[in-house]
Amino acid sequence: MAGRNSKLKVIPLGGLHEIGKNITAFEYNNEILIVDCGIAFPEDDMLGIDLVIPDYSYLIRNREKIKGVVLTHGHEDHIGGLPYFLKEVNVPIYGTKLTIGLVENKLKEHNILNKVDRFSVSAGEIIKLGVFKVEFIRTNHSIADSVAFAITTPVGVVVHSGDFKIDYTPIQGEMIDLQRFAELGKKGVLLFLCESTNVEHPGYTMSERTVGVIFEEIFQDSEEQRILVATFSSNIDRIQQIINSAAKRKRKVAVVGRSMSNVVKTACELGYLNVPQNTMIDIGEIKNYTDNQLVIITTGSQGETMSALSRIASNDHKQIEVKPNDKIIISSSPIPGNEKAIYKVINELLKKGADVIYDGIMDVHVSGHARQEEIKLLHALLKPKFFIPVHGEYKHLKAHEKLARTMGMDKKNIFLMGIGDILEVGRDSAKLNGTVPSGQVLVDGLGVGDVGNIVLRDRKHLSQDGLMIVVVSMERETGRMLSGPDIISRGFVYVRESEELMEEAKSVVKDALFKCEQKNINEWSYIKTLIKDTLRDFLWHKTKRSPMILPIIMDI
Amino acid sequence: MAGRNSKLKVIPLGGLHEIGKNITAFEYNNEILIVDCGIAFPEDDMLGIDLVIPDYSYLIRNREKIKGVVLTHGHEDHIGGLPYFLKEVNVPIYGTKLTIGLVENKLKEHNILNKVDRFSVSAGEIIKLGVFKVEFIRTNHSIADSVAFAITTPVGVVVHSGDFKIDYTPIQGEMIDLQRFAELGKKGVLLFLCESTNVEHPGYTMSERTVGVIFEEIFQDSEEQRILVATFSSNIDRIQQIINSAAKRKRKVAVVGRSMSNVVKTACELGYLNVPQNTMIDIGEIKNYTDNQLVIITTGSQGETMSALSRIASNDHKQIEVKPNDKIIISSSPIPGNEKAIYKVINELLKKGADVIYDGIMDVHVSGHARQEEIKLLHALLKPKFFIPVHGEYKHLKAHEKLARTMGMDKKNIFLMGIGDILEVGRDSAKLNGTVPSGQVLVDGLGVGDVGNIVLRDRKHLSQDGLMIVVVSMERETGRMLSGPDIISRGFVYVRESEELMEEAKSVVKDALFKCEQKNINEWSYIKTLIKDTLRDFLWHKTKRSPMILPIIMDI
Repeated sequence: MAGRNSKLKVIPLGGLHEIGKNITAFEYNNEILIVDCGIAFPEDDMLGIDLVIPDYSYLIRNREKIKGVVLTHGHEDHIGGLPYFLKEVNVPIYGTKLTIGLVENKLKEHNILNKVDRFSVSAGEIIKLGVFKVEFIRTNHSIADSVAFAITTPVGVVVHSGDFKIDYTPIQGEMIDLQRFAELGKKGVLLFLCESTNVEHPGYTMSERTVGVIFEEIFQDSEEQRILVATFSSNIDRIQQIINSAAKRKRKVAVVGRSMSNVVKTACELGYLNVPQNTMIDIGEIKNYTDNQLVIITTGSQGETMSALSRIASNDHKQIEVKPNDKIIISSSPIPGNEKAIYKVINELLKKGADVIYDGIMDVHVSGHARQEEIKLLHALLKPKFFIPVHGEYKHLKAHEKLARTMGMDKKNIFLMGIGDILEVGRDSAKLNGTVPSGQVLVDGLGVGDVGNIVLRDRKHLSQDGLMIVVVSMERETGRMLSGPDIISRGFVYVRESEELMEEAKSVVKDALFKCEQKNINEWSYIKTLIKDTLRDFLWHKTKRSPMILPIIMDI
Repeated sequence: MAGRNSKLKVIPLGGLHEIGKNITAFEYNNEILIVDCGIAFPEDDMLGIDLVIPDYSYLIRNREKIKGVVLTHGHEDHIGGLPYFLKEVNVPIYGTKLTIGLVENKLKEHNILNKVDRFSVSAGEIIKLGVFKVEFIRTNHSIADSVAFAITTPVGVVVHSGDFKIDYTPIQGEMIDLQRFAELGKKGVLLFLCESTNVEHPGYTMSERTVGVIFEEIFQDSEEQRILVATFSSNIDRIQQIINSAAKRKRKVAVVGRSMSNVVKTACELGYLNVPQNTMIDIGEIKNYTDNQLVIITTGSQGETMSALSRIASNDHKQIEVKPNDKIIISSSPIPGNEKAIYKVINELLKKGADVIYDGIMDVHVSGHARQEEIKLLHALLKPKFFIPVHGEYKHLKAHEKLARTMGMDKKNIFLMGIGDILEVGRDSAKLNGTVPSGQVLVDGLGVGDVGNIVLRDRKHLSQDGLMIVVVSMERETGRMLSGPDIISRGFVYVRESEELMEEAKSVVKDALFKCEQKNINEWSYIKTLIKDTLRDFLWHKTKRSPMILPIIMDI
């Protein structure tokens, strides 16, 4: 069945609009290789939803073909879907040591660690998964041990960038293996999938090391103060730099926040964090030290409601109380949508007298994603025949297309794919051809996929104007009202101050029901609709609001 | 009662955390002057709320003292509260011609135009309101005809900056009257209230005119395309520049969006927009022109759900359909919190093949607010004795304090006020002394203040996990179940796919109720609590969700 004319199918799947970010399938004849397996975070209108995973149905249907999952790095949007995916399709997973360490934490939480085969692979190594040879290539990113992949397939070499930046002076580990990219390019790259997060930004992303220089300045300037730093728990190099500045001044370091504690523990165990002896203390011990002997590293740099920093800011943290002698560094920049939450935390901390330093005031954060000049460099080294911009909203993909074209790439060799699209790639050709079932599956509590559009629409409606329940009991045979109507409202008005309105509403419904009785109408669907319409019109006229109206008729 | 020792009280009120933005009261003995009367926009957690107004109770209680309201400019956060305030306290209002024109539109909508005395005042003029002399001083801002105030009081001169930037090359009208600020400073300014919106940004805000230059470039580059520009309806100078570029190429201009049509009409009538004859056409006429003969100006530059641009992007606009030959300019930058909504609109437009230009890709927007160097200039010209940073979240006020201190101002002369705080100012002294009742009043539909914390908490709860209603009818005397329990859910799970869960839930409740019956318990509050607890535990165990549970017992 395989032959010279077989094609490689590239199928980006994903939770939301960012194609290929969460999961991408490479299929050749009867074999499938999967790159990454992440989640997306819910959009604003996905009320009550915890996370979003891709529709895995195509992969589940083809589970026999799947050779394994290779992971570029340990961020949630690249590994967070594994517990859900592996419950459906148990295949081996491959990643660098830190990535696998973080995956193991995750699988433990879901009680499936023992059921999953997992393998550590070092940058520079090549693994063979069926017809695919996957080479792990060192990159730089905002989490240690990130890699790109060069996947040798029967039709040619495919390079997947993963998330990357070019850091000439990384904190630990080596810099991105530009020589290997060049070598691959020289030999010939058929297809390049490249991330697009920062493609709208000109220039270069600064080295992680520049943040350390600023930390040093701030520490220098805060000799007598207690120092708190909030950052992403996964940014181990950032944490290393904080620890370095602390240890240099013999300050003790305590970490708070569940994910921060977990990641720091894992990173220490695996040798990704280098902590001088007697530096780490438990958060419970901070009371034994003076302000100038302490550095506290915390989660919550995105203003997340339940995070340690938010709780500290609202005086709701058991071990830490903000005070005017605190210097607080928010070492992150807002992910779009989180601005207001972060600003709220900053305001609260400032009001309590702390000195707060955040991105924009000083350069206490750098991105983990390549900007235009770095992206161009990878294109220049690889010189691929075909190109798929990935990891971005459509506007990023368009901007990346434009960038590739300025470098001379032919528009017809660039493919702006949608989630579930199939790109068929041969040795000399590539074309979009068909789709697989795809879409988003919402996870809410333990429910995977049981919240759909109707439920979300109802939540939205309830959140805007609340609800009114009208209850009436009726005699089954005659339709005679036995009791009610009673009206119960939630989220509509503060009832005690609107008694009059509620009484009026009741009597409007009562009148409508009496008319039914007089006309001997006892068809319930009619009566329910009548209650709804009558009450809706009345309330709109009186309040210009439209609560959800639920008529309930009890038959006795 | 008045005397040499009387103090001026300065009382910033406001809807949310941005002090002094919406309304500030100046009180001297028995006289009160009010500066601005705006609204705030609801926070993310104020579900279903339309807008937020300040608690006016202090002013209402002192209505006899109020001499009038003076307005700095016509933006919603400075004039939007007038309909609500004037219904409580009917006092004369004063503003420049355009500001009053926009206020009149607003009062008309609320049917109170005839009841309100209103006066146009030109920049440079001085009006006397009781003991206060208010001088209107020309400034620049993102709406035409903006002013600052120099208020001469018995204790000294108070300068209120309003919202401002320094534009050396404004589009129409004159530039900010720096000479007058200098003259006032030379004579002696007692107190300066200065806006803080952009105080975190170094440097200068660019001139509005720079946007026109970019428009020219884009128009030049889009000879055969239809051009759409989305911007703030109130930014009349921006609209003027679009019209200029259109008219130069003999393109016709149509406007869409209710607020855009209203403002353009008012601005034309009052002479703030200069539209060459035969340039404006009705949106219905666009079908009579070719793409290269058209420019469409639209609302929706913040991605607002119901705006013209959002509807255009989702193919839901009656007169305008996006097409690949469209060049669409989003001439704004996201107000924090709106990022995702705007990006969604941009993605949709790009997917439909249009060429979309937005801030970050090209400089198609400049702010209307002064950056650090401009703010410093005003401080340098005025050299006030006392200073209150206003118009900003707490982090902005802190940054503004820092800026003033770098210019040599003494920390004890700078007052970071909270909403409702009273600053007592004498000829040589100023101190915080007491507060007035203050806070936010939520407006939802026609309801002003009838949605409070309980209602919002319920809306939040409903939005996260929906609700479950349990209905049972019972015989009044015996507590015997006559029918039910019936369970109705909304926003919880998609019932058809979760029938089993719903059946189980029902039988769990039934069991609990049977036990009550057997024990002859017929105390309703007990039974209701039992239903709630039983169901809540069951659902949490099964789904890890907590819908609102409403038990309803009908007695027959």
